[in-house]
Amino acid sequence: MPVKTELSPTLKQVYLFQDAFKAFEEDQASMRDHLGGKGAGLAQMSASGVNVPPGLTVATTACKHYSKTNAMPEGLWDEIIFELAKIEQVLNKKLGDAKNPLLLSVRSGAKFSMPGMMDTILNLGLNDTTCQSLAQITNNPRFAYDSYRRFIQMYANVVLQIDKEVFEHALGQKKKSLQVKLDTDLTADNLKDLVDKYKSLVKEKTGLEFPQDVHAQLKGATEAVFRSWNNSRAVYYRNLNKIDHDLGTAVNIQSMVFGNYDNNSATGVCFTRNPSTGEKELYGEYLINAQGEDVVAGIRTPKSIKEMEREMPGVFNELVSTITKLENHYKDMQDIEFTIEQGKLYLLQTRQGKRTARSALKVAVDLCKEGLISKEDAIVRIDPNQLNQLLLPSFNPKEKVKFKKEGKLITTGLNASPGAAIGKIVFDPDEAESLSSKGEKVILVRIETCPDDIHGIVAAQGVVTCRGGMTSHAAVVARGMGKPCVVGCESLSINQDEGHFSINDKTYSKGQIISIDGSTGEVFADAIETEDPVILEDFTTLLEYGDEVRKLTIRTNADTPLDASVARSFGAQGIGLCRTEHMFMAQDRLPWVKAMILATTKEQRLEALAKLLPMQQADFEGIFEAMNNLPVTIRLLDPPLHEFLPKLETLIFDVASMKARKESGKELREKEILLARVRDLHESNPMMGLRGCRLGLIYPEIMEMQVRAIFKAAINAKAKGHSPLPEIMIPLISCASELELARHRLEACAKEVLEENKTQINYKFGTMIELPRACVTADEIAVHADFFSFGTNDLTQMTFGFSRDDAEGKFLQQYLEGLSGNKLLHQNPFEVLDEKGVGRLMKIACDYGRQVKPGLKLGICGEHGGEPASIAFAQSLGLDYVSCSPYRVPIARLAAAQAIIKAGSGSSSKVALDK
Amino acid sequence: MPVKTELSPTLKQVYLFQDAFKAFEEDQASMRDHLGGKGAGLAQMSASGVNVPPGLTVATTACKHYSKTNAMPEGLWDEIIFELAKIEQVLNKKLGDAKNPLLLSVRSGAKFSMPGMMDTILNLGLNDTTCQSLAQITNNPRFAYDSYRRFIQMYANVVLQIDKEVFEHALGQKKKSLQVKLDTDLTADNLKDLVDKYKSLVKEKTGLEFPQDVHAQLKGATEAVFRSWNNSRAVYYRNLNKIDHDLGTAVNIQSMVFGNYDNNSATGVCFTRNPSTGEKELYGEYLINAQGEDVVAGIRTPKSIKEMEREMPGVFNELVSTITKLENHYKDMQDIEFTIEQGKLYLLQTRQGKRTARSALKVAVDLCKEGLISKEDAIVRIDPNQLNQLLLPSFNPKEKVKFKKEGKLITTGLNASPGAAIGKIVFDPDEAESLSSKGEKVILVRIETCPDDIHGIVAAQGVVTCRGGMTSHAAVVARGMGKPCVVGCESLSINQDEGHFSINDKTYSKGQIISIDGSTGEVFADAIETEDPVILEDFTTLLEYGDEVRKLTIRTNADTPLDASVARSFGAQGIGLCRTEHMFMAQDRLPWVKAMILATTKEQRLEALAKLLPMQQADFEGIFEAMNNLPVTIRLLDPPLHEFLPKLETLIFDVASMKARKESGKELREKEILLARVRDLHESNPMMGLRGCRLGLIYPEIMEMQVRAIFKAAINAKAKGHSPLPEIMIPLISCASELELARHRLEACAKEVLEENKTQINYKFGTMIELPRACVTADEIAVHADFFSFGTNDLTQMTFGFSRDDAEGKFLQQYLEGLSGNKLLHQNPFEVLDEKGVGRLMKIACDYGRQVKPGLKLGICGEHGGEPASIAFAQSLGLDYVSCSPYRVPIARLAAAQAIIKAGSGSSSKVALDK
Repeated sequence: MPVKTELSPTLKQVYLFQDAFKAFEEDQASMRDHLGGKGAGLAQMSASGVNVPPGLTVATTACKHYSKTNAMPEGLWDEIIFELAKIEQVLNKKLGDAKNPLLLSVRSGAKFSMPGMMDTILNLGLNDTTCQSLAQITNNPRFAYDSYRRFIQMYANVVLQIDKEVFEHALGQKKKSLQVKLDTDLTADNLKDLVDKYKSLVKEKTGLEFPQDVHAQLKGATEAVFRSWNNSRAVYYRNLNKIDHDLGTAVNIQSMVFGNYDNNSATGVCFTRNPSTGEKELYGEYLINAQGEDVVAGIRTPKSIKEMEREMPGVFNELVSTITKLENHYKDMQDIEFTIEQGKLYLLQTRQGKRTARSALKVAVDLCKEGLISKEDAIVRIDPNQLNQLLLPSFNPKEKVKFKKEGKLITTGLNASPGAAIGKIVFDPDEAESLSSKGEKVILVRIETCPDDIHGIVAAQGVVTCRGGMTSHAAVVARGMGKPCVVGCESLSINQDEGHFSINDKTYSKGQIISIDGSTGEVFADAIETEDPVILEDFTTLLEYGDEVRKLTIRTNADTPLDASVARSFGAQGIGLCRTEHMFMAQDRLPWVKAMILATTKEQRLEALAKLLPMQQADFEGIFEAMNNLPVTIRLLDPPLHEFLPKLETLIFDVASMKARKESGKELREKEILLARVRDLHESNPMMGLRGCRLGLIYPEIMEMQVRAIFKAAINAKAKGHSPLPEIMIPLISCASELELARHRLEACAKEVLEENKTQINYKFGTMIELPRACVTADEIAVHADFFSFGTNDLTQMTFGFSRDDAEGKFLQQYLEGLSGNKLLHQNPFEVLDEKGVGRLMKIACDYGRQVKPGLKLGICGEHGGEPASIAFAQSLGLDYVSCSPYRVPIARLAAAQAIIKAGSGSSSKVALDK
Repeated sequence: MPVKTELSPTLKQVYLFQDAFKAFEEDQASMRDHLGGKGAGLAQMSASGVNVPPGLTVATTACKHYSKTNAMPEGLWDEIIFELAKIEQVLNKKLGDAKNPLLLSVRSGAKFSMPGMMDTILNLGLNDTTCQSLAQITNNPRFAYDSYRRFIQMYANVVLQIDKEVFEHALGQKKKSLQVKLDTDLTADNLKDLVDKYKSLVKEKTGLEFPQDVHAQLKGATEAVFRSWNNSRAVYYRNLNKIDHDLGTAVNIQSMVFGNYDNNSATGVCFTRNPSTGEKELYGEYLINAQGEDVVAGIRTPKSIKEMEREMPGVFNELVSTITKLENHYKDMQDIEFTIEQGKLYLLQTRQGKRTARSALKVAVDLCKEGLISKEDAIVRIDPNQLNQLLLPSFNPKEKVKFKKEGKLITTGLNASPGAAIGKIVFDPDEAESLSSKGEKVILVRIETCPDDIHGIVAAQGVVTCRGGMTSHAAVVARGMGKPCVVGCESLSINQDEGHFSINDKTYSKGQIISIDGSTGEVFADAIETEDPVILEDFTTLLEYGDEVRKLTIRTNADTPLDASVARSFGAQGIGLCRTEHMFMAQDRLPWVKAMILATTKEQRLEALAKLLPMQQADFEGIFEAMNNLPVTIRLLDPPLHEFLPKLETLIFDVASMKARKESGKELREKEILLARVRDLHESNPMMGLRGCRLGLIYPEIMEMQVRAIFKAAINAKAKGHSPLPEIMIPLISCASELELARHRLEACAKEVLEENKTQINYKFGTMIELPRACVTADEIAVHADFFSFGTNDLTQMTFGFSRDDAEGKFLQQYLEGLSGNKLLHQNPFEVLDEKGVGRLMKIACDYGRQVKPGLKLGICGEHGGEPASIAFAQSLGLDYVSCSPYRVPIARLAAAQAIIKAGSGSSSKVALDK
């Protein structure tokens, strides 16, 4: 029967494993949609002649129907019985048969693996009669009663919803009364007693007898699996992993094989390659005379799969040859579940093996070298986001789990800047600096940070703040420095005077050691063991494969020579965004920046700027040297001036307090002057106020100083034999006239410096496209620009009308999680570029811009420049480059290559890894 | 010689008046471009056989050349001399001829009239020789020397740039030494002495003799007129009136006629209709035996033109018949300058007469009724903006001038809400209310206003604030109420404790009377006489003409039944924007609004909302009644909640002060709780924060209460026999999913109320399109909307990234005025809709929206809805309606009609009135 791609109510709902592959032969793509990952794997294995215990799969459509109507689809039960009869015939066993009873497992299996989230029932078909038959047939009453005991517990828990604990308690009591420790110490009689006890517990809890009707058992179990699709764990897992709630799960009903049949039986899991390192070696564990759950439960310690070669050489060889066949078939590392019953090997499941980033890289590169897959295949196998963990120091994951168990997780805030850091708690930036200069490692803990704290942030290993979001001062500065940072730990309250912070009634004092994980936002007490990053050879190889197909240039966002060097070592092909305001915030400059802002005459302002010029120049020299021969895009001063001054609220508080205390004198007067200036600069919506080019146009001398510093630096770098390629970027353009005037004035400065020095430097002037108006008037703006760089952070803010700082705490999270079950946004537009809205504006800007200037250079310098889906979109727009933080350069290189490959294959889907 | 439309360097540069009309016959449209308004008028008059003193016009091209090169175009002088010879021949006089000297006037004349801005020289051609000839020929030495004296002064001032004062001083000295008072008391000899004195003054100031060479005089005067195009007065005037700086001026060189020749000579100005009232009557003044400047100088009091019928009946009749001919030719009221020399009438200039709005209306309607122009012509003759003055009480303009002269102008702030108001100064809203209830008229003067002050604003005649811009609380509320308001009077400092405000060392106390002009931003001491608005019959007639062609529906922005009634009386066809937040701000509601915000449980919030429901319901009932049978678009709550609470800064100040004074107790505790909540609600950029639909989605009960109130009100209105047509508008949509969920929830409330009452009401649900993302995803949004209303205020803010409150004070004004002479914006985008940027987004939204839903109703409810150019744009987009404040409804009606007519005639230019 040919299967259509569209689901239809008349579609067959139940497939035998052995028939399923053929049924979907013409439309293999939809097999996983219908049968789930496990069902598709079983079908494929059965079709390939791998020895799989016979079984059938109930398609996902049935679950969808059940989710909607709370009832089994009509005819489903008849179909199940019909197909089951074929299995009974093959095995010469029958469900519920007193002589030769068939036992079944009933397992969930959705399109994407959701390990442990849904329910499984084993040994179904046992009742008082068939249990006795099993005891006789196997001549192993202990095995029979143990299987029945396990079945009752599972069924009672999953179908009848009785707490497991009830049975565990009874088991414990039994062992206690017998004074034994292990389950294996229990005899057949003991287990028989337990079966009776369990049955009476079921009666007690439900008022009904444990069902002896095996068909009722099967119906109940099937429905329970359907129900488990919507249990809270499963819903949570899907939300976390962005899996569609509408997919539904298949149900796999399979004849049982028993690894616990005898000592010639076993059960185990194995990977075709090492999932941790990627080495080509059999990796896994097995247990003789055991059922699958015994391996997981950890009561007995499983043996390494390698020992099996010695213990069961025949079966071992069969296993190796089978799984090698499977790996060759799937062309990827497989994760296999198997059972050996009386010396016969059965495969229960095969799937793409989950793996660490390191293993993923090695497997992909090795498979390519082995000729199993192409370079393109190798490239698209890797989830670029996974690479991040290879590029940062991280905490040992096992240690972290241990710490959590020990209650050492202090709090979880926002993961503002990734990486792991350990140090002593310190509250004061000066103290951070002085301790650090003595070689101490410190973590700076602040309510929030301000430009005055920069030296403390520089000195610290990492930063924790109580307030602020992903774009708060601390977050932005820390990310710029590649320093781990956790912000917005709202429940943490600092008492700086007494030198401690407290949270949930616990207190942590200055000097105490904490560990912070900027990748997860976790803050721990004490030091967790860390692991250093290494750039693996396979990593380099894979990126080189990618570079062969990649079209987008990858630049970096870097504000310091150090960042620039790091990025270059990762393969950055220039700087796409050098933010000059961070240079203003350094401790030695801030006084002059303040003097510039507080200047009451142009002369005073020029004097302060003259002090800043050589400092900025030195920064630029270092950057030009690090980026020798590569373009360096420098954005002129962007933020509003009040960001460099103390906060209005603080000043109001101080002045009010001083006045109420009837203080007077110089200090109050100075505060009042400062307050007046801060008030003067205060804006209702500073994001949309006097900043960017507006500031540069109203106070031209600031940006003119910056341009002089850039060109003096370039001239010096050139004199040292370097080849600087400055690209001056004028921010926040809304009208072509702004760019025209700003460029006119600034290019004049550049020419003046070049003429003074009688030399030439290749340079460009361009603009950020970060306002919707810039997009829709890009034709006019392009006339005055050598390049456009999309500032997608601000563009996203303006397009949505979302202030990121306000939105993330106040409503964006709720939009993403859903309001009364309705997700208003499926992705955070500040993380993944919003193609429908922001993307449409970008498209307009590209079209208009290139219409006027076909060779206009186009790039992205917002945070989206390092995000794979957004990079694919940039490629589809035909941009020239993306720019991202140094540690995301390799990710961007890979993502850009994937974009080309996927566009070529016509697939726009996500990385094709099993989720 | 046929003239091309494009200016070319080979184009003729000098035209005799009598030849010019013919030269441009094939391209009359360009005649004013080339010859200026005055030159074109003289050419036309000459061609029509009107008696004009012969002369020639130097085309604007010459001035443009001069402006660029600072030199006369090659060949120009030869052309002038060549054409001048023809004039000399006709008049049988010759420039500089000792026997029969020709005297000339040299006048500027640009395309658009710039009265008094550029220079004029009369009596050119006089020197020591020709002056004596003139004395002999006229047998009037006094006239000759007086003319020579005037010429020297004018020439010295305009060409040689010697201060007039130098000559006025000499004249004064002379009169003093002779002990006479009037110029006319000076004898020929006295004037001869003065001529000598003047010549020696020229020598003294320039080191050179006064030029006796008449050709040098003419060259100098022509160049001086060219130069005067760029004098500072002229540049300022052009900036003010938005006249292109590149147009250049023509130069009119004309033979002199002398109104001061004898008592059979005269000079005067007259209008063909009354420029103040529009009555069809001769209106003007004349003086016998005088030159034009005497009329202007006001030394002698001119007589009404009507007396001329008695004094000079022959010439009077000739004048009447000539100017009637001219009015018929130009089909508009003419403003004419004439001179009578020895009984012969000469016309020196004709132009469209400037007129008041009242006169403009009457003239247009009368001309139409007289059959001279069509209804369409009548409609486009009126500048819609000019109508504003007819719809508001205003100060008597003469009185205002007098007050200014008397130094009673206290200060000028921003003209936030138009109209005139008089009242006693009061600083406290409660006091304003209590005085007002006793029948006193008061003006509320505040540093800035907040929702707590609303009752004071309601009670006051008008409002003055020290801080805030065009969208500050005071400005928005006052505009909503149609109450005069001046904001941002920064230099005004209030000392409320001592009951006075001071400015520039002057102090004004509580109770003192002031007058405020919300149309100009002026604040005066004492009461200025006001004039009440009247709706003139002509006004009604003209609007009716307009209604015949208009396609756009005109709605109004109204928040109260009173506003709704006013707007309806002006012809509003529904409400396009009813803002519900102003209802929240009323004094009796604010406590409940605060209670709702400060509620810590949902129950408390619901309780507060239950109190608000009947109040909102009552508002809506009144509005539905006033707008019976017309659609009423109600926008659900839009602003962020903190707008209803005290300011963060104030609370910080209070709490800091109380703590520093070591106060404690209930008051402090309450303040601290309030502070905590305000801090909680505080946002970095509230414009882009938790407001609009976001607020409604997170706290659904607020908007649900509003929808219940709307439908209960509609049901009550229906029960009273009215026909309510509510249209619910959900603000600030950025994603279709927001609208989908909000509509789903709110429509359910509506249906619930209707079902409870077992009745039906026709309703619509729609959204504001005010975010760029809404524009570019309008296809998705339209699915859930019955209508789109462009919120062009917010859309302009987001598109430009300009926060209006911040931008207007910080950089927008400078963008409009120009930075180093470069205007970055030519119009304030918050006043005139930005077609290039915001307009492009609107176009996208219209196209996408109608693509999905062809019948989607589209409108504008931003302030642009009442601005003529923006209305024309709305028409070009094919919108269904615009909505504006009640007092702008007539303006919008007219502008919408003009848009159709101009689109039909293919002209997109401005109203064709002489500027």
